[in-house]
Amino acid sequence: MTRTTQPPGSLVLKIGGSLFSDKSRPGSLDEKVFASYAALVADLAKARPGRIVLVTGGGAFGHGALRGLDPDDPFAPLPFVQATAGVRWRWVSALTDMGVRALPLQLGAFSTVDPAHPLGVAVAEEPLKALLAAGVLPVLSGDCLLRPDGSLEAFSSDRTPEVLVRALGETPRVVTLTDVPGVLTGGPGSDDVLELIDAHHPEDAYRHVWKESEWDASGAMQGKLDALVACARQGAECFIMRGDPGLSDLRHLTRPEDEWPLGLKRTRIALPQEEAR
Amino acid sequence: MTRTTQPPGSLVLKIGGSLFSDKSRPGSLDEKVFASYAALVADLAKARPGRIVLVTGGGAFGHGALRGLDPDDPFAPLPFVQATAGVRWRWVSALTDMGVRALPLQLGAFSTVDPAHPLGVAVAEEPLKALLAAGVLPVLSGDCLLRPDGSLEAFSSDRTPEVLVRALGETPRVVTLTDVPGVLTGGPGSDDVLELIDAHHPEDAYRHVWKESEWDASGAMQGKLDALVACARQGAECFIMRGDPGLSDLRHLTRPEDEWPLGLKRTRIALPQEEAR
Repeated sequence: MTRTTQPPGSLVLKIGGSLFSDKSRPGSLDEKVFASYAALVADLAKARPGRIVLVTGGGAFGHGALRGLDPDDPFAPLPFVQATAGVRWRWVSALTDMGVRALPLQLGAFSTVDPAHPLGVAVAEEPLKALLAAGVLPVLSGDCLLRPDGSLEAFSSDRTPEVLVRALGETPRVVTLTDVPGVLTGGPGSDDVLELIDAHHPEDAYRHVWKESEWDASGAMQGKLDALVACARQGAECFIMRGDPGLSDLRHLTRPEDEWPLGLKRTRIALPQEEAR
Repeated sequence: MTRTTQPPGSLVLKIGGSLFSDKSRPGSLDEKVFASYAALVADLAKARPGRIVLVTGGGAFGHGALRGLDPDDPFAPLPFVQATAGVRWRWVSALTDMGVRALPLQLGAFSTVDPAHPLGVAVAEEPLKALLAAGVLPVLSGDCLLRPDGSLEAFSSDRTPEVLVRALGETPRVVTLTDVPGVLTGGPGSDDVLELIDAHHPEDAYRHVWKESEWDASGAMQGKLDALVACARQGAECFIMRGDPGLSDLRHLTRPEDEWPLGLKRTRIALPQEEAR
């Protein structure tokens, strides 16, 4: 598990909703911070057209749609479809204004829950691949996916990259930007992170994951770790990092890890080198 | 080209935007008429779960998004994505309130323009099929589809059934409800319709199609006829009829044509009987 010296082929960048929206406040969106992140994504998309996929968290919108659902209603999560569509469109509007060709994609229109599938989700990847081949920035999010029994599953934005990795081609990378700098080893409030997690043996890492607030529907760090372990097992090099809207750019995310700025905290989740390459 | 005595396996019902929205008035939607159509669709979906696909026209919303586009901007039609998503969600909300499990589907998330494909569009049909198999009502519309050169094509709701026919299985039917009772033989204002069109030889029918108002982006009757000829050539039995929100139900649309109420005007577009079956 040494650092890679190869640049990634393509990058799924997941931006946590908590970075631009206060999940505990319905409808909250910090316009200024959101615009900063959009500018960072626009810069990245222009630098590497066709190599970037954006996955946005739902923030207050997504979480609000999933609170207080009727457990007996198989279609109860339906409002999540519209809530996440609204957040995708916010990104697409902002990115378009910045000169990026971006298109929102509804995950549930090309993916369904399939327990027989190795990923647990059957995916029709062609349109996503076509967008990348055309140099367009696909903008995705969590969404409701159909289960075989006809009910809807609220599939989180954290898990969305799992479904996308295969469409990325060679040496995919997944970066999840959130409000902590990685998997913390000192509990809440600490700033020490676990630097490396072997995706075949993530057990030790889970000891550092704690239960988050009740109002968070995403499973917080545990959900992120589950998702990135699943991405890494598909061959992706994955990172959990703190998002910072004040950065000048995010271009290091498309460069080999050993060329990243010094002192940038993160947790890397990957297969042992010899297996991944 | 005699009438069929078999019921259709599945039905794509396309409801023209002009039936519930005045295309010449931005944002127009007649709530009462819309609710009536939603009740008709809900009844049909409950009577034949998993056998109905709804395609909604964009009405004032869709047409508004396509007016005055910059011909030099390959992404100019992008607002059509959001406009049609809004109309799909109106339907899904209304249908859900009426007890129907309905899900909006973004056409451009599972279809791309592909000139090499016999349909002109490459389609990943699995999620749509899965929804039908689970008894869910998929709600579609026009949308922007990616072209191979990376530009967006505003793909009309009239054409959307072309992309869906193959997912319907055996003996598909497509019914387009619009504001005229079929292909009129006497020009605008007449009420005489061409009863049958052979999808292999539609030339004569096109003589009856006239140019519509400038504010209509859909190509009006010519676009509908092109689309239904394309559907019929895939084996669908197709009809153009006038929508009537005052009907007690639309269940005849899922019965063999010879069992339909008497005096119901329509234009039927199909392959000659021996080829279609």
